[in-house]
Amino acid sequence: MLILQRTPGVLRTLLDGLDDAWTRSNEAPGTFSPFDVVGHLVYGEKADWRPRASIILEHGVSKPFEPYDRFAQMHESHGKTIRELLKEFEKLRSKNLKWLKSLSISETDLDKKGLHPGLGEVTLRQLLSTWVVHDLTHIAQVTRVMAKQYKEEIGPWVEYFRIMNF
Amino acid sequence: MLILQRTPGVLRTLLDGLDDAWTRSNEAPGTFSPFDVVGHLVYGEKADWRPRASIILEHGVSKPFEPYDRFAQMHESHGKTIRELLKEFEKLRSKNLKWLKSLSISETDLDKKGLHPGLGEVTLRQLLSTWVVHDLTHIAQVTRVMAKQYKEEIGPWVEYFRIMNF
Repeated sequence: MLILQRTPGVLRTLLDGLDDAWTRSNEAPGTFSPFDVVGHLVYGEKADWRPRASIILEHGVSKPFEPYDRFAQMHESHGKTIRELLKEFEKLRSKNLKWLKSLSISETDLDKKGLHPGLGEVTLRQLLSTWVVHDLTHIAQVTRVMAKQYKEEIGPWVEYFRIMNF
Repeated sequence: MLILQRTPGVLRTLLDGLDDAWTRSNEAPGTFSPFDVVGHLVYGEKADWRPRASIILEHGVSKPFEPYDRFAQMHESHGKTIRELLKEFEKLRSKNLKWLKSLSISETDLDKKGLHPGLGEVTLRQLLSTWVVHDLTHIAQVTRVMAKQYKEEIGPWVEYFRIMNF
């Protein structure tokens, strides 16, 4: 929770007000720009973490999770600005964390299992930890994608930045 | 400048108030924890970007840059809290950006050259771009290092996170 509540503010501080050259550029065809990442996080608040936590708590392994559409934001974000997406993410995340807190999840709950369509049995503890890791790795992705936009600009320094070749 | 002024706020939002398990853990012996990264950025504000920009503008290639101590923060940060380092970084960065703005750097200035002890001739434009890339890649590093602290906790999901093996 401590990390999950920080992510919308981190991304807003990093991205709000930047022009498209920073927010709409990606690493390669089919990869995410910072704009795509924020849209992906918005969609995750709606379709991924909370619904899956609910399934674990209400149905356990008897009802598998819906497969997650990693590219849903390609149409869901269409026509929106990054500021709109950042605000939507902040609102949804805040709502979902309030919901999570209201559940007063116990240690026993954390060990409850669900059925992931690709990975098999997973626990609620693993799902919630993955939510955190998912946030952190997408912040890492956003800053890596942004850094790469300056690959040419930094001239000979490029050899000191291993990350430029990831 | 647009990115450079954001970095202290991004790191504060991400790190301030987190416990040592998040801020003091690293990836492997000799690598940086988030605490080390912030100390490294503080030291960079004092010993790297501004002094080197000054050398380019005042001396050109006639005076090589001082080699930069990538591990200076290991003693410079000793005994400080991450909150102190975050505040120090914010203050120094703000001061250095004011200084940079006060120079009213021209296109001609941006093409001026300096002598890097390892890389040879570099331009002021490349130095300033590298400053931005250096910020972004260290934010990526901090979030990657934090994500790795949950490598065990996420169970089978680990296979979906390529970054865990970087």
